[in-house]
Amino acid sequence: MYPFMAERLERELYEAGIDLLLATSRHNVRYLTGGYYLPTFQRLEPIGLSHYVPMLVMPRRNFAQSVYIGVSVPDVDEVQALEAFGPMWVEQRVWVPELRRSVAGLVAREAARQIRGLGLSGGTIGVEKAFLPLEAFEVLRTELPEATFVDATLALARTRAVKTTRELALMREVHERTARAIRATLEAGRVGETSRAVEQRLERAMVEEGVHRIFTFAGIGPSYNRFPRDIPWERGHILQVDTVAEYDGYLADLARMASLGEAPAVAQELFAACLAVQERVRGSLGPGVRGQEIHRLGWEAIRSCRWADGGNFIAHGLGLVSNELPIFNAEAVDALEPGMVVSIEAEYRHPEVGHVKLEDTVIVTATGCEGIGDFGREWCTVAE
Amino acid sequence: MYPFMAERLERELYEAGIDLLLATSRHNVRYLTGGYYLPTFQRLEPIGLSHYVPMLVMPRRNFAQSVYIGVSVPDVDEVQALEAFGPMWVEQRVWVPELRRSVAGLVAREAARQIRGLGLSGGTIGVEKAFLPLEAFEVLRTELPEATFVDATLALARTRAVKTTRELALMREVHERTARAIRATLEAGRVGETSRAVEQRLERAMVEEGVHRIFTFAGIGPSYNRFPRDIPWERGHILQVDTVAEYDGYLADLARMASLGEAPAVAQELFAACLAVQERVRGSLGPGVRGQEIHRLGWEAIRSCRWADGGNFIAHGLGLVSNELPIFNAEAVDALEPGMVVSIEAEYRHPEVGHVKLEDTVIVTATGCEGIGDFGREWCTVAE
Repeated sequence: MYPFMAERLERELYEAGIDLLLATSRHNVRYLTGGYYLPTFQRLEPIGLSHYVPMLVMPRRNFAQSVYIGVSVPDVDEVQALEAFGPMWVEQRVWVPELRRSVAGLVAREAARQIRGLGLSGGTIGVEKAFLPLEAFEVLRTELPEATFVDATLALARTRAVKTTRELALMREVHERTARAIRATLEAGRVGETSRAVEQRLERAMVEEGVHRIFTFAGIGPSYNRFPRDIPWERGHILQVDTVAEYDGYLADLARMASLGEAPAVAQELFAACLAVQERVRGSLGPGVRGQEIHRLGWEAIRSCRWADGGNFIAHGLGLVSNELPIFNAEAVDALEPGMVVSIEAEYRHPEVGHVKLEDTVIVTATGCEGIGDFGREWCTVAE
Repeated sequence: MYPFMAERLERELYEAGIDLLLATSRHNVRYLTGGYYLPTFQRLEPIGLSHYVPMLVMPRRNFAQSVYIGVSVPDVDEVQALEAFGPMWVEQRVWVPELRRSVAGLVAREAARQIRGLGLSGGTIGVEKAFLPLEAFEVLRTELPEATFVDATLALARTRAVKTTRELALMREVHERTARAIRATLEAGRVGETSRAVEQRLERAMVEEGVHRIFTFAGIGPSYNRFPRDIPWERGHILQVDTVAEYDGYLADLARMASLGEAPAVAQELFAACLAVQERVRGSLGPGVRGQEIHRLGWEAIRSCRWADGGNFIAHGLGLVSNELPIFNAEAVDALEPGMVVSIEAEYRHPEVGHVKLEDTVIVTATGCEGIGDFGREWCTVAE
């Protein structure tokens, strides 16, 4: 019935002692509605003297009583009620039974009214402390003097960590499209092109693939500064493209390598080491494995290269948010579960050739893991 | 010396009783630094369990003592300190004398430390209540128990309302590029194309023009629902494209009209009425004029058309934020000043032809106003 992991969310809220969830961030509203977010504010939220903050009110004991409070901006859409026309409410039938609209600034007041109506004004309300603006909180605090406010961020993040079938399909889609866009960009590279121009071509390639570019590092060796700028790509120099792109809210995060003409021998060696780290980690990833084990294995693999001093290993969760759960570090004792998505980064910095990196994403399966977006993983040698 | 209206800001802070400004929103950080914002988070701010929140600490009595606190995300950039490599800090020499980095979640603690160092821990601190996350505020509240926190949103918005020369150049640039992208998109329209396809072509055209599409309404008559979807454009039907695009942080907001084959006579009449409203308003805009006068004039012009019942008039400020100051409504008594930017919307909804609209942007000058992005204002008749 629900487009999210309902039992998982209910358990997480219960364990956090939360009676009612008040979701307000773009990613959690999208997650809980099954993809809805008013298109007008998907790419930029500020409006007037405030910003777009919809509120999804969900009582833990009965999600069927949830209410979504969208925004009607005065003097902006007096005539056209934006949320009511929102394509998903009309065409895709969001499960939330009640849609209310309120003017910006009064959304929190309407949310408080709904919470009182649900008889939970004295309960424990889970809010997203890292995303709830102080302005909205002050209204909630005043309107619900008996409520206890706690942070629901972790409960939501834990719920989102295991993806639904729909989410996994979107994660595959965004990675495949992004991998193709990066490869096309690398293959079309030419002598003298700046990293800024590479970024611009990647933007075009992503638009052709129907994904939205979020950001791009484009490092030209031997510099370690990967911000796109006016540095030209020259013969024998390596190029690293490390980029995040979005499709229907879900993120791809991939890094690929190229060189103009044959890559320097050291770069080839470092790239082979990155591939070896990836294979080592993929061979170990699977249900029941702890984040700390992957962290240890990854670093072990990084250190087995003779250029270990410039090496770095990172693994992180990925979905609607970059670096979401699961966590991978020395303290991460939680076991991986099927349906989790992991971005694996293996990289080496070398003073003579620059920054060599390979970043891929895998889905944890019942028996191990499966790479998504592996297209164009091999080194791209561009003819001079 | 400063890239923003320093005297104006100082006066606004003084009048609001603010001793120290703590700016945290993307648009105000960009404004106050003269364009800087870490590229990695320009399009998407969430990261891990929180989001990117840089803090710019500015004592009112001496902006030269300001400190910028950027973010160093643990396990994400242990090796590469993102902010230190930020292109503008390196290449464009932001005026802020001190750059500090802190890990996410500890930025507020570092800000509090800086505020204590400035001897203002007992002062009145202006924060952006609509943008400061509760999580960060709780740290500030705990670390600075003697401070008084007030909202600095209006002081900042009032300061930004009059644009600098650099800002006006960017506003022209984004409007010219956006106007060209819309016109190219309309001219290439064809029978049977859906409004979703129009949006996709506009995305491509904007990338070619180097602007970032924020959102698009694409209304095909006679429906009033302007969200891009699977509705085809047919002969004799009108198409309205109303879109926002961004260039270096600054926004264009334009609406243009087209039809497949000759436009219905009523649509032509409504468009002529929109043009007349625009001309009436432009003829009256200038320094010293109050927002309420423009509001009254605009509505008067809207009502002079025989289809007045479906008419609507909106004027709003535009810059780094849509619908920023100046305000135009029946209560707006503030006088316009040279350097303010105004978006003027004139529109009519008609049950037989649909939604006809013309939206343009002008800069208030010393003697009146000047249209920017007027390219392609005329009705676009596409050959069938």
